[in-house]
Amino acid sequence: MDNSLFLKACRRELTERTPIWIMRQAGRYLPEYQAIRKKTDFMTLCKTPELASEVTVQPIDIIGVDAAILFSDILVIPEAMGMGLEIIESRGPVFSDPLRSTRDLDRLQIEGVTERLGYVVEAIKMTNEKLAGRVPLIGFSGAPWTLATYMIEGGSSKNFDRAKGMMYAEPEAMHRLLQILADAVIEYLNAKIEAGCHAVQIFDTWAGVLAPNDLEEFSLRYIDYICANLKTGGAPVIVFAKGMRSYKRISEMDCDVIGVDWVSDLGKVKQEIGDSKALQGNLDPCVLLAPQTVLEREVKRILDAYGDGPGHIFNLGHGILPPTPVENAKFLVSCVKELSIKQHKTVI
Amino acid sequence: MDNSLFLKACRRELTERTPIWIMRQAGRYLPEYQAIRKKTDFMTLCKTPELASEVTVQPIDIIGVDAAILFSDILVIPEAMGMGLEIIESRGPVFSDPLRSTRDLDRLQIEGVTERLGYVVEAIKMTNEKLAGRVPLIGFSGAPWTLATYMIEGGSSKNFDRAKGMMYAEPEAMHRLLQILADAVIEYLNAKIEAGCHAVQIFDTWAGVLAPNDLEEFSLRYIDYICANLKTGGAPVIVFAKGMRSYKRISEMDCDVIGVDWVSDLGKVKQEIGDSKALQGNLDPCVLLAPQTVLEREVKRILDAYGDGPGHIFNLGHGILPPTPVENAKFLVSCVKELSIKQHKTVI
Repeated sequence: MDNSLFLKACRRELTERTPIWIMRQAGRYLPEYQAIRKKTDFMTLCKTPELASEVTVQPIDIIGVDAAILFSDILVIPEAMGMGLEIIESRGPVFSDPLRSTRDLDRLQIEGVTERLGYVVEAIKMTNEKLAGRVPLIGFSGAPWTLATYMIEGGSSKNFDRAKGMMYAEPEAMHRLLQILADAVIEYLNAKIEAGCHAVQIFDTWAGVLAPNDLEEFSLRYIDYICANLKTGGAPVIVFAKGMRSYKRISEMDCDVIGVDWVSDLGKVKQEIGDSKALQGNLDPCVLLAPQTVLEREVKRILDAYGDGPGHIFNLGHGILPPTPVENAKFLVSCVKELSIKQHKTVI
Repeated sequence: MDNSLFLKACRRELTERTPIWIMRQAGRYLPEYQAIRKKTDFMTLCKTPELASEVTVQPIDIIGVDAAILFSDILVIPEAMGMGLEIIESRGPVFSDPLRSTRDLDRLQIEGVTERLGYVVEAIKMTNEKLAGRVPLIGFSGAPWTLATYMIEGGSSKNFDRAKGMMYAEPEAMHRLLQILADAVIEYLNAKIEAGCHAVQIFDTWAGVLAPNDLEEFSLRYIDYICANLKTGGAPVIVFAKGMRSYKRISEMDCDVIGVDWVSDLGKVKQEIGDSKALQGNLDPCVLLAPQTVLEREVKRILDAYGDGPGHIFNLGHGILPPTPVENAKFLVSCVKELSIKQHKTVI
């Protein structure tokens, strides 16, 4: 497994071509996924190892990606802390009783979170059985700031005024919450690695809504803390914080791969951070809705932007969109495989 | 009027303190505005010069900002092209019959747009009478890309997949639409300047959702074209494109001021672009919901980030939020006035 394209690229070793996986690759764009979701609600799917492992493996068989990512949701951590979670198709995740004050933090059931997430350990074992060594398995977690926004806002948000409100009015409470979450994330990701995940990714989807000082104080500092305290046993750590204006700070963390959204130029990020980390990204998910000639052109543009040298993992700059045609997802994977072989040949 | 703090700062001349105005300063956070909106729907308010001028002047009297901005909406241009527009409080702007194909472009009534926007000229004259030379008046327009997203999506969007879909699948149609809009924006802003606006601002609210090449091709190129073709007669031009990773390209345009969102560091932007342009920004609008001690600290942080030298116009990094307490808006204005006098004194 250590010689898989994906893990080699994470370690910035030379590979014969660029590996690819797709954020949310086990998801609504796949009819095979929808068939299972018709019979099961989202949270039950997350909590049923037999089903979670089944949908995790689907995109390996169907579109041919080079890594699997365990089907789950970032909000299983707050849910395991006792916050009632509903996933409403039209509205996204909803916490019926969000955190609104310091006192609300006392409701959180901090002890035994990883035990209550035992279904994940089970799902990892079943997934690795199904994968039978074909590709590595990635485990993921939300980052503290992003988790906190959902727990405080009660769901998706436009302006994040409640989360930022607590951040500004009760910074101690916010830090207490973020520290609770950071410790839970460490324990959770450690358990995932121990159960058989070959790499882990930390998602800070909403880092990009913070002003520079707030970004450091309420988001990046906690990701840094997580990276510094994981027991990886050699499993690569991917940090994906969306909306970064600079990747310098993340490049100084104890991680292996930096996820890059589609708004940044991969070549410029590479230039900014030097050779310290592998980069993952960064196609605009909307390109998958475009004609295949455009898709091919944009894949080429990204491979060219990264240019020569090892350490590129192809991915989207955010999750795949539900209206994506499956044939375009397949075409993307084959494009990356074919075009990057040519590129790597000219290098080797 | 040419000696007003705001216009001097736009021209990067020394001022005794930093001028301030606030995006959406005439808006829902003001009870005086709400009193008028109770009797009038949003579009009628835009189209009734007596009322539009009244709400434009409100924040000058109530919170003491250094410039007025004519109350209007960026979507008056597509509306004047014959697209039926409704502003629904809970959903934002809605076009009942959005553009979905090349053929739909033929529906747009391109001739006579500025004539149909005659109510704006009237409102500018009435506003200047009411202002009686106290502060300069800014006129604004949406940028072509942002206007196009609303016209194609039919309203606000999460992923912009329809607008990007047209961009990728029918780039010629998209360019045709953007060129139509760019020409309309030029004529519209020229008419505003001629009617008495002392400065104009171009808003590209959704520029930040585009990948680097698309940003240049479908957004910035058209802003550049507008800047190059305005007949300003000396009126400063402000370009505010939200979500920029770099301000270099905008700094090369024929504009005077660059608006900066709250995610960028003002000092770093100043460093990146050199002394070529004034900068406007960039407080996170959510800070106005925070305790006043925090508000004061953050104002100081932004004044310090800009540092010495002329050419800073204080503003938020995006529009003021409806739940903002009026006393906090007042406090912000007085903070900027007092703290920046101290700073400018140490310089002069």
